[in-house]
Amino acid sequence: MTTQLHKPSIILVNPQLGENIGMVARAMLNCGLTDLRVVNPRDGWPSESAIRASSGALDKGVIVTIYDTTQDAIADMHWTLATTARPRDMVKEVYTAGSAMAETHNKIKNGQKIGVLFGAERTGLENEDIALASAIITIPLNPDFCSLNLAQAVLLVAYEFMVQADQTPEKQLVTGKTDIATAATVANFTDRVIAEMDDRGFFKSPDMRPTMERNLMNLFTRHTWTDQDIQTFHGVISALIKE
Amino acid sequence: MTTQLHKPSIILVNPQLGENIGMVARAMLNCGLTDLRVVNPRDGWPSESAIRASSGALDKGVIVTIYDTTQDAIADMHWTLATTARPRDMVKEVYTAGSAMAETHNKIKNGQKIGVLFGAERTGLENEDIALASAIITIPLNPDFCSLNLAQAVLLVAYEFMVQADQTPEKQLVTGKTDIATAATVANFTDRVIAEMDDRGFFKSPDMRPTMERNLMNLFTRHTWTDQDIQTFHGVISALIKE
Repeated sequence: MTTQLHKPSIILVNPQLGENIGMVARAMLNCGLTDLRVVNPRDGWPSESAIRASSGALDKGVIVTIYDTTQDAIADMHWTLATTARPRDMVKEVYTAGSAMAETHNKIKNGQKIGVLFGAERTGLENEDIALASAIITIPLNPDFCSLNLAQAVLLVAYEFMVQADQTPEKQLVTGKTDIATAATVANFTDRVIAEMDDRGFFKSPDMRPTMERNLMNLFTRHTWTDQDIQTFHGVISALIKE
Repeated sequence: MTTQLHKPSIILVNPQLGENIGMVARAMLNCGLTDLRVVNPRDGWPSESAIRASSGALDKGVIVTIYDTTQDAIADMHWTLATTARPRDMVKEVYTAGSAMAETHNKIKNGQKIGVLFGAERTGLENEDIALASAIITIPLNPDFCSLNLAQAVLLVAYEFMVQADQTPEKQLVTGKTDIATAATVANFTDRVIAEMDDRGFFKSPDMRPTMERNLMNLFTRHTWTDQDIQTFHGVISALIKE
C-alpha cells in the first residue's frame, strides 16, 4: 500500500442509525480508508452509538465530515460511483465491485479523487443521487438473497480496493524458526530408511530395492518439509528400530 | 454459478453469541453458501437470537449442524482451511482469501469437499484447531486495525468464493429501454450542429470548419451515447436555434 496516493472516500447518504455509521468506519479502517462523508444523518452527529460501534476506528484514523446534500459531498470528486443492489432504469455503466476498484486505482494514479455513494439502510440510494454518479457498482451476490447491511456493503468495496493494492504473496509457507529442508536432507532421510529396512532383511530380492526407493522418495518429494519435520521423522525411525 | 458442484462448508468453532451465528448465516447465503457447521456453541442451539440476526437466511437455505469437536465437524472434508488474523508459529501454507478460494474451486472440480474454520469472537482459533487444518487463510487487512467481526470475516471468504465463480461482465452499460447510438446517428447530429452554426455565419473563413468538425466529433466519440441521449441533444439544438 502506498501512503501518498489518494484513497476513495466513502459517502453515506441519509443513513439512519449511528451504530451503522460506526460499523462503516470500522470496516473502512480495516481496509485502510479514512475519509467518511455523511450526508444528512437522520439521528444527528456526533453520535455516541457510532463511536461505540466503531471499535475505535473513529479515534484511530477515520475522519467524519457532515454535509447537507450529496452534491456538496461529492463536489471535489472526479469520479463518483453509486452502489445499488439491482440495476435501475438509468443509462449508466455498471461495474462489479472488483472492476470498479481496479478502475479506481487507475484513476487515482492519474491524480483523480474517487467517491463511493451508499444509500440509507433498507431503501438504498434515491434515483436523484444515482443520477449524480459517474457509474454504478452492483456487487454480484446470490440473486435470491442479496440484502447486505450497510457496513458489509462498504466492507466489500473497501476490501476490493485494498486487496488490489496488496503485495502479500498469494500463497506462502510460514515455517517459523526452522528452514525448508533441501533435497539432500530429504534424500539422506529416505536413504537411511532404506538402509534400516535392508539391515532388517526387508528386501528378499535385490531388485525390490530400486522400486521401494523410488516410491519412498516420491512420498516425500510431493510435499514441502522443514528441517524440523525431517528431524521428527528421524526420531520416529530411531524409536521404531530401538531394540 | 453451478448448482451441481459442492460449495465450501463454513465451520464455526466455539462461537459465543447466537446473534453472530445468525449474522454468519446471512453473510453465507448472500454468497450462496448453505452448509454451516457449529462446534460447541457457548449459548446453545437452537437460538432465537441467531434466527433474528439471520434476516431469514436460516429459513431460506442455510442448514446448521452442531458438532462436539472440530475433528467431528471436518471428518468428511478433503481440504480444511483455518482463518487467522496473524500467522502463528506453525509450519503451514498461508493463503490470501482470494487464492484460497481459487484453489477451493480447483479442488471442488476434482470432487473434493472443502471446509473453512473460523474461531471464537475475540480469541480466534486455538492452535489445536489450526493444527487440524490443511492450510491457513490470512485476509490481508490494514495491519494497524484488523479486527473483523466474525460475520465480516465469513463474508469476505464467501464473497471471494462467489465472485470467482461469477459470470457477471466486469463492466456493462445498462441502457434501459433505449439502444446505444450508432456512429452514423452521432455523426448525423454533429453534422447538423455544424450546419446550423454555418447557417448563422460562425465560420468566418472556410478552413475553420474542418477543425471545428473534428473537435466536435471528438467530443462525442469519447463517450457512449444512447439514441435517447442524441434525441435530447437534438432537442436542445432545436430549442437554441428557435427565433
